[in-house]
Amino acid sequence: MALARLVDVHTHLYLPRYAQMLRSRNSVPRILTSTRDGKPDDRLLILDHEPSGGRPVGPQYWDREEKLKFMNAHGIDLSVVSSANPWLDFLPASEAKTLASQLNEDLEQYCSDSPLLSPSLKRLYGFGLLPLVPEISTDALVQTIEQISKLSHLKGIIMGTRGVGKGLDDEALDPVWAALETAGLVVFLHPHYGVDEKAWGDKNNGHVLPLALGFPFETTIATTRLILAGVFDRFPSLRLLLAHSGGALPQLSSRLASCIDHDPVVASRLKHDARWYLGKLYFDAVAYGPEELGFVSDVIARSERFETGSSASAGTPVDRALGSRRMLFGTDHPFFPPLQSTEKWRSVVENLQAIDTVAGWGQAEKDGVRGGNALALFNLG
Amino acid sequence: MALARLVDVHTHLYLPRYAQMLRSRNSVPRILTSTRDGKPDDRLLILDHEPSGGRPVGPQYWDREEKLKFMNAHGIDLSVVSSANPWLDFLPASEAKTLASQLNEDLEQYCSDSPLLSPSLKRLYGFGLLPLVPEISTDALVQTIEQISKLSHLKGIIMGTRGVGKGLDDEALDPVWAALETAGLVVFLHPHYGVDEKAWGDKNNGHVLPLALGFPFETTIATTRLILAGVFDRFPSLRLLLAHSGGALPQLSSRLASCIDHDPVVASRLKHDARWYLGKLYFDAVAYGPEELGFVSDVIARSERFETGSSASAGTPVDRALGSRRMLFGTDHPFFPPLQSTEKWRSVVENLQAIDTVAGWGQAEKDGVRGGNALALFNLG
Repeated sequence: MALARLVDVHTHLYLPRYAQMLRSRNSVPRILTSTRDGKPDDRLLILDHEPSGGRPVGPQYWDREEKLKFMNAHGIDLSVVSSANPWLDFLPASEAKTLASQLNEDLEQYCSDSPLLSPSLKRLYGFGLLPLVPEISTDALVQTIEQISKLSHLKGIIMGTRGVGKGLDDEALDPVWAALETAGLVVFLHPHYGVDEKAWGDKNNGHVLPLALGFPFETTIATTRLILAGVFDRFPSLRLLLAHSGGALPQLSSRLASCIDHDPVVASRLKHDARWYLGKLYFDAVAYGPEELGFVSDVIARSERFETGSSASAGTPVDRALGSRRMLFGTDHPFFPPLQSTEKWRSVVENLQAIDTVAGWGQAEKDGVRGGNALALFNLG
Repeated sequence: MALARLVDVHTHLYLPRYAQMLRSRNSVPRILTSTRDGKPDDRLLILDHEPSGGRPVGPQYWDREEKLKFMNAHGIDLSVVSSANPWLDFLPASEAKTLASQLNEDLEQYCSDSPLLSPSLKRLYGFGLLPLVPEISTDALVQTIEQISKLSHLKGIIMGTRGVGKGLDDEALDPVWAALETAGLVVFLHPHYGVDEKAWGDKNNGHVLPLALGFPFETTIATTRLILAGVFDRFPSLRLLLAHSGGALPQLSSRLASCIDHDPVVASRLKHDARWYLGKLYFDAVAYGPEELGFVSDVIARSERFETGSSASAGTPVDRALGSRRMLFGTDHPFFPPLQSTEKWRSVVENLQAIDTVAGWGQAEKDGVRGGNALALFNLG
């Protein structure tokens, strides 16, 4: 039996070139350089009204040694790292294009120089960046995909939800989905914008509402808009990995199917019941509870029922084990650091404990979610 | 063994007085009276940019005979009816106060004149209305609660998420929560506003995005803000029933707990881990799928683990049956009518089938969710 690996598919960095750019800026997103009691006290401001003066930011965001130290402390064998939000979303198209290309080369270097995990595997692989800004040309995006597909340690791309033109559901992106599908690159869909902050009210609840609710809402909206736009009907081999276990999409998927079925505008638009598409997606296991993970697993497993309609074989028990194959461990490092300094991060321990205690998953399923599924998805091993 | 009743706790109406008021208006919300091919073709416009020219509206919204006909067609023994959104949210305070009082009397009449289900039970009970608008005085709200508590067929109130002043988490509402708690009235929390429509993009997806996602997001945000404001710490006997199975709150509850634990602003504010509060809430079973219902049931059942902290007894299997006791069948009538005319509504059939096929629920749990839990919650029987 092969050794069960622990693979982190949701782990972020700001490459030094990117951090430098954030330091040079006068408006959000930026890194505010300052000192407190004679020590560096840099702050990261990535949201428009960042509570608490911004988040402490330091070498854990850009220093590869810090990433490896974190991996070692938590028994993580291999990480597929990605740039943290807000990526290049705020830049003019030409600058975004140039910087994407440079950062992709930087990330390839960051990974290819990393320690060996086995004779054929490094410890670090990466998701590249596209210059996905409203004014960009499709050609520029396709060129960047071609660049990434030639960088052997980059196994996918990370993408925000803003898209080009009118959003991710804009048909202008069809050549991009086609190129990603052809290149076999995994698309990691990750939130940044949340929803309009007026929803959070006036009370000071720190980052809780935008992070706990706004982030997953954003991923849910973006994925639903992709489903409704028929993107998965047109690009059935596209491999989309959803951050934070798909946000609220699993829990709202039967309601979504029902709303579609009852709305004359969309009732006959799609090839399948909405729930069918969830079985074609991949979900990280960053949900912090075993019941959540088990449920996501059920929703993936049940999707086959809905290939030919909404009422087929309702009531047949789902095979929760089957659903686990599209779920992958992640940490969200370096976000959610412990409030008190500890060797092991509580956010990581909770996610590992959640995987370990899902009712109905055997050792094979747990090993799969911990790492086996990621090695298969990224063709590593 | 007592006969297992089917009780609908999520079923709406516009009382004739309210419908008349909507017809007299020149701006949303309104009923637009018109004819098509010589027949009445009235349209309901309740959202700012109502797609498809508004929804067909007719006697199913205000005629008690239509409600009873619908109940009979679906085997529903008893309904606890509530005014449909947007209630009185859009009215000036004095008008809202007067109309609330009149509509509560109207609803009492609507229910008390309804047929007998048994010597001690009618077929219709109701949720009253509060004049919950920003300029209202707390005294006026408490007076309306006193009125409702004297109307013997009104068993609770339905409430939107707008609240007074700064929202439902405004401390100005504390006397209202106290009065509701004392009166033993169930608070049915129901969405109307969704989230900012910019999130839905430019494509015409009918009502799907605001209904399938916006509605549950709104309920999730409102309930989370109530938790964060300590309302359930201060009013532990308040009985809150969440529309649409709590929206996305169950699936995001462990993430919420983790975000709270990692945020210095709120980490030590609440008496319990966020997940504990979900076990004090009630959830309708309007989620359209058995996996969703089973998951909500798990989340309720696991809440006891979190009374004293976040990591107590993780890994202990949850008793899904236990969680079912706070879940209650609903239809959302007269919304989600079938696109083709049929005797039985698909939306209702799917919700009944979902209850009937939840893995791990025995007949007692299914009977409870179908009606027993509602009879107990509303003290009917």
